Amino acid sequence: MLVRIAEIDVHPHHLADYKALLAEEIEASVQLEIGVMFLHAVSPQDHPHRIRMFECYASRDAYVAHLQTPHFLKYKSETAQMVRSLTLVEADPIMLATKAM
Amino acid sequence: MLVRIAEIDVHPHHLADYKALLAEEIEASVQLEIGVMFLHAVSPQDHPHRIRMFECYASRDAYVAHLQTPHFLKYKSETAQMVRSLTLVEADPIMLATKAM
Repeated sequence: MLVRIAEIDVHPHHLADYKALLAEEIEASVQLEIGVMFLHAVSPQDHPHRIRMFECYASRDAYVAHLQTPHFLKYKSETAQMVRSLTLVEADPIMLATKAM
Repeated sequence: MLVRIAEIDVHPHHLADYKALLAEEIEASVQLEIGVMFLHAVSPQDHPHRIRMFECYASRDAYVAHLQTPHFLKYKSETAQMVRSLTLVEADPIMLATKAM
């Protein structure tokens, strides 16, 4: 399993467009890719443009495959001018518990 | 829905004990409380004692109820001396997508 946190600083005037593109990319990734376990993106209320994401992939191979998908490449090219900085924090899970829906 | 990020700085020499207590509390909360949607705790590889948590509750009432549960109160009292600082970041969801298991 591969878990990481992404911290994405977005140009404030592109925030609405960025969030729409990110939401579309997340939905496609979790639906279409067997190795994407969850992707959770939130916007902190005090700094809405400093987006945080929790990402969980079944393996490093699943993550590498994710980077080659059409929906990820579309997101990456269409948001390239909207992102001021991207920080990736590799992490080890302590406990990841989700309610069965 | 209520979403937040918790950043918990733990005394490094208490880290193993703290992680065990946190894992137990998360498991109980998601299993026993109808309003706890997910709790994901990770330990960044570069700063393992600066734990990050993504928390999602069905409502503010569900969160308030969570604070009164025996498992949360046990966690809170047993870890009180282990935590150096706790920062809570209120956030708005952009997209929270989890693979159906």
